[in-house]
Amino acid sequence: ARIVTLPGDGVGPEVTAAAVAVLKTVAARYEHVFAFEEQLIGGIAIDATGEPLPAASLAACRSADAVLLGAVGGPKWSDPNAPVRPEQGLLALRAALGVYANLRPLQVHPALANLSPLKNEKLKNIDVLFVRELTGGAYFGAKTRSADVATDECRYTVAEIERVVRRAFELARGRRRHVTSVDKANVLETSRLWRSTVQRIAAEYPDVKLEHQLVDSMAMLLLTQPNRYDVVVTENLFGDILTDEAAALAGSLGLLPSASLGDGKAGLYEPIHGSAPDIAGQGVANPVGAILSAALLLRHSLGLETEAVAIESAVEQVLRHGPHSRDIGGHAGTGEVRDAVLAAIE
Amino acid sequence: ARIVTLPGDGVGPEVTAAAVAVLKTVAARYEHVFAFEEQLIGGIAIDATGEPLPAASLAACRSADAVLLGAVGGPKWSDPNAPVRPEQGLLALRAALGVYANLRPLQVHPALANLSPLKNEKLKNIDVLFVRELTGGAYFGAKTRSADVATDECRYTVAEIERVVRRAFELARGRRRHVTSVDKANVLETSRLWRSTVQRIAAEYPDVKLEHQLVDSMAMLLLTQPNRYDVVVTENLFGDILTDEAAALAGSLGLLPSASLGDGKAGLYEPIHGSAPDIAGQGVANPVGAILSAALLLRHSLGLETEAVAIESAVEQVLRHGPHSRDIGGHAGTGEVRDAVLAAIE
Ligand SMILES: CC(C)[C@H](C(=O)O)[C@@H](O)C(=O)O
Ligand SMILES: CC(C)[C@H](C(=O)O)[C@@H](O)C(=O)O
Repeated sequence: ARIVTLPGDGVGPEVTAAAVAVLKTVAARYEHVFAFEEQLIGGIAIDATGEPLPAASLAACRSADAVLLGAVGGPKWSDPNAPVRPEQGLLALRAALGVYANLRPLQVHPALANLSPLKNEKLKNIDVLFVRELTGGAYFGAKTRSADVATDECRYTVAEIERVVRRAFELARGRRRHVTSVDKANVLETSRLWRSTVQRIAAEYPDVKLEHQLVDSMAMLLLTQPNRYDVVVTENLFGDILTDEAAALAGSLGLLPSASLGDGKAGLYEPIHGSAPDIAGQGVANPVGAILSAALLLRHSLGLETEAVAIESAVEQVLRHGPHSRDIGGHAGTGEVRDAVLAAIE
Repeated sequence: ARIVTLPGDGVGPEVTAAAVAVLKTVAARYEHVFAFEEQLIGGIAIDATGEPLPAASLAACRSADAVLLGAVGGPKWSDPNAPVRPEQGLLALRAALGVYANLRPLQVHPALANLSPLKNEKLKNIDVLFVRELTGGAYFGAKTRSADVATDECRYTVAEIERVVRRAFELARGRRRHVTSVDKANVLETSRLWRSTVQRIAAEYPDVKLEHQLVDSMAMLLLTQPNRYDVVVTENLFGDILTDEAAALAGSLGLLPSASLGDGKAGLYEPIHGSAPDIAGQGVANPVGAILSAALLLRHSLGLETEAVAIESAVEQVLRHGPHSRDIGGHAGTGEVRDAVLAAIE
């Protein structure tokens, strides 16, 4: 299998290197051959080529089986009015790969419950899979800007809604068979189209329970009843906000992985944390989010379920017994956590 | 002073009646004359007239000094694809009154910390004033819908941004002089216009500290560092989501008030909870959100600061010593809580 790595900016290279080390150990242990190819994205790509997603990077990603990304952005490229910005590389990559379904699983490890802002009793049995639409909505709609006025268009077609919602229902079948669709159908036309499309798709899945929530209510319910939810599907911008809110429950952003899938070949895998410029280059970033993203890569792009579970179990042990990185209250560096995970892989 | 009441649907009439009782007691105690006029809005207005905001209601509101609203909506009118919906009345009223600044204060009463999903140590010193833009953005932008595609346009002019941001800075001067502006400037053009406008206005307020946050980060920071924030200003849809998320911290939605202000005459005051159809008509709804909205009405529309504080102090005592309604773990009905507040007004 061919895996393209896009380490990107800030702590991206450090955590990506740790995840690659884990993939190499899995390859050796389970006798697979993974070919890795590193490419540029984000601020580092702008500095080197003038573009946040150089053609060579995109071509490599298109022909890969999977893409493992670190993070993009940093203070050097943080002017939102600059013509070229690191985030553009990420958005262009998502669009080019057609990875319309962004999966963000959330569980709270019992050993880390003390780090969560939520009370312990609220954290019991949280096991949510967010499915965020990733290639549509206001992110990719028409935009205008003049001196006096700006616009962003949120646009969704039925086909765009159908495919991501179907993915959510399929995933629910492998879980607790409960889909919560989030929209703002009392105000937005795109949400009303979203809701009626969801209703129609749901009829194909009579074995899956469907619930609708408004996005404002959902922002509250994630805090008051987080363990009520199984699969949560929503559009791009609502998903961006709700998944970050939910991530706070886990105690540290550094722990959480994501997988972005389309119908095509290459899936895109990235930890949900950003480039964390304040700790970049110090070897203290938590590699767990990136390592768990590598596990998702094995599961969803390479079909290697046993190997994915091997990584997840190894991480589980390390979270339980340590060593812990700084963000989760320990003193271990990135390499120490990586080595502990490597040692725990069976 | 002339006050129009719009009790609306569900628990709206019950909580509005309690708030009116409090205003009457204040009027008697401080020797003011308040004239109350009740009008229709929402589902009950649709049933009576076919319209969610009848012309008579709007005319009364326009000529009033302040408007006190209960809640709109309910299962009877909940089809988002229906041509006429209760929420349309509320949105039309906000637009017609030009109440572009929606103030939502958040404090967590120490006696209710056990109800919050957040850990107690996170709840210390939370004192946030959200200023949500209320008459622009995707709520009021152009919408299209065909069989296959729907669009919502988010549109902001510099003038719309300026006035609400200026209001936020002015309010910060009466508080801890810290404004946090929330946008998604790494993706949205309206957010980039928002951010540069905020930066320009901030220069007029060198005594106020300005911070920018992306909406996804803010959704997380509200949980991890809620006591870091003073005034938080944002656009309409982000404000809808973030204020509901923040409201969950208080332990019950039933506690929280809001004020919607423009440059014109009548301010609009409403509890942030909805119509709560599940408990409507039972006399158990918490009237505190509505009563505190009446206090904001006295402060912002009638300039009666002492009287506003008298209500707030009375509510504070009742929250401390009881009686408590069901949503905050007690057994008291709406009338019992109302009477306790009335008795505590000095
Ligand atoms: C970096 C940014 C453009 C991105 C997004 O908003 O999608 C990030 O927040 C994410 O959630 O992956
Ligand atoms: C009822 C609904 C249209 C409204 C809104 O979205 O503004 C409500 O959620 C609110 O926050 O006041």
